[in-house]
Amino acid sequence: MTQVTILGAGDMGTALVTPLARNGHAVRLWGTPRDAEIVATLRAGGPHPRLGVPLPVGARAFPAGEAAAALAGAKIVVVAITSDAVRPVVGDLAVHLGDPLALVTVAKGFDADETGRVRILPDVLATFSSAPVIAVGGPSKANEVARGLPTAVVFGGADAGALARCRDAFATPDYAIETTADIVGLEVAAAMKNAYAIALGVADGLERSSGQPHHNLRAALFPRAVTEMGRLAVALGGRADTVAGLAGAGDLQVTITAGRNRLLGERIGAGETPDAAIRALSAAGTTIEGYPAVGFGHRLATDLGLGGVPLLRALHAVLHEGAPPRETLWAAATT
Amino acid sequence: MTQVTILGAGDMGTALVTPLARNGHAVRLWGTPRDAEIVATLRAGGPHPRLGVPLPVGARAFPAGEAAAALAGAKIVVVAITSDAVRPVVGDLAVHLGDPLALVTVAKGFDADETGRVRILPDVLATFSSAPVIAVGGPSKANEVARGLPTAVVFGGADAGALARCRDAFATPDYAIETTADIVGLEVAAAMKNAYAIALGVADGLERSSGQPHHNLRAALFPRAVTEMGRLAVALGGRADTVAGLAGAGDLQVTITAGRNRLLGERIGAGETPDAAIRALSAAGTTIEGYPAVGFGHRLATDLGLGGVPLLRALHAVLHEGAPPRETLWAAATT
Repeated sequence: MTQVTILGAGDMGTALVTPLARNGHAVRLWGTPRDAEIVATLRAGGPHPRLGVPLPVGARAFPAGEAAAALAGAKIVVVAITSDAVRPVVGDLAVHLGDPLALVTVAKGFDADETGRVRILPDVLATFSSAPVIAVGGPSKANEVARGLPTAVVFGGADAGALARCRDAFATPDYAIETTADIVGLEVAAAMKNAYAIALGVADGLERSSGQPHHNLRAALFPRAVTEMGRLAVALGGRADTVAGLAGAGDLQVTITAGRNRLLGERIGAGETPDAAIRALSAAGTTIEGYPAVGFGHRLATDLGLGGVPLLRALHAVLHEGAPPRETLWAAATT
Repeated sequence: MTQVTILGAGDMGTALVTPLARNGHAVRLWGTPRDAEIVATLRAGGPHPRLGVPLPVGARAFPAGEAAAALAGAKIVVVAITSDAVRPVVGDLAVHLGDPLALVTVAKGFDADETGRVRILPDVLATFSSAPVIAVGGPSKANEVARGLPTAVVFGGADAGALARCRDAFATPDYAIETTADIVGLEVAAAMKNAYAIALGVADGLERSSGQPHHNLRAALFPRAVTEMGRLAVALGGRADTVAGLAGAGDLQVTITAGRNRLLGERIGAGETPDAAIRALSAAGTTIEGYPAVGFGHRLATDLGLGGVPLLRALHAVLHEGAPPRETLWAAATT
């Protein structure tokens, strides 16, 4: 039995209690101030408001004010906070982190520091703790993980011992875990699949506005997106085969059918301006992580002088330069 | 202007008239005896009964009995006949084929000759004509091609001159064509994506029978399917990158969302036996090309002693050995 503390009582943080509890670990789920209502409900034995399931036996929820108690003696700390909040929230908690054997992060993607330098989130976490960082990628809808439905993910990290310990802690017959040392490929895929899902979402919007199916366009964009994510991964020191697997192609697959990021593309494809579409989604409380990911990815590609990413450049032009969506994306997909 | 004759007035044969007519070619569409009603409707100026569009100006439909007239002087002959009928139908027409500069085949996949030897369809066609064979792959729903909606495909062939001529004849701003010399990779992907779509369809069926989403399972199967198709292509002398592109990942993407082959998997995932599911679909007139493709692929993998295709072996076990679908496919996806 390992003491595990999960930071963030959102969907994925809470969902990961399921495999950990099934393996008999003692799990503490700490909620941020934004999670106050969720934590109160879970402590009262009620179901998570979005997942619809209560905490399994043996798991306890902690409110924001009890971070020290939640983290005391934790051997594995799971970071399940939205990417843009990782720096401030984990920064505040750093003093309580102690000396865990690993930080497991399901927060994904890129962050820019004060100087504007783009970093992957595991590198951000490494500034707060000397524990090895394990990143989680792959197609993983939280509501299915919470219900113990079959899910295959990838754990990535440079420390083979910590990686094996974490895999053993989380893996169940329904939560299958591959491991990789390619944390860069994993993070690039995790972040950029949200960006490319916007492009595929445009096909959904064209369908809606034209009344005509656009399956061929959507399917044509898919392998280009995977190819470009692979090029970006390689340029940053990762591997293309990581992106071709669960972490990239697999996660893009689930994101374009059941994710939020495609909604931005759908609105744009249906005729809204990108600004109006982002405002409408933000007003509805929908976080579109792919929107900043397009910016980060585009900046990295430009800084690196990376060629062979026409779809990323087209996405950037559509979102930020007023380029017409259908023509611009189609031209990029067929160059 | 090139004289083009299309053999088969089914969905794809008829749809390809659209880009050819847009490029100003003289197109003759010949229907098999099974297409008699379609040909009569098109000749009367009516719409194709499934595609919903009439023949463009400059194209003419020919009934089965007028094969000689339809083929006279054809410079490009397009084979758009269901795979299992290619040998008998093209065999009967061989005497009228003349000396075209290329045979373009949208019929896909494998065939077994009298001795049981498995061959890709372009090799079958080569027994009837000395013209270079060009194979067409990639995500391409016929109803979208017929309407001039954006479609990106791959033309593959060993004869670079014939390949370029055919690309020039078909390519339009909405029908984009990549070319490759890897006809083997193209055909393996074209055939096997139908087989793997059955596996992904099982996830749809599990959703239906359990009332629970199975997005994670479907997405986990996707990159495994692409990887296995790549291994099969390489074992047969083709390339994995062909399979990772439009012809494999792209075509699988469209097949699992809008294809027929997933329907077999869906029925099996929902609890029907494979035999009952196949009977029900056949009775409804639905051809499941993936069903024989599983058999062909499995036989090839076995003959070649090919490892690393657990999902294909699992599919075969589910369809032909009574293996339980969910457990068998999940075990294969996570080995």
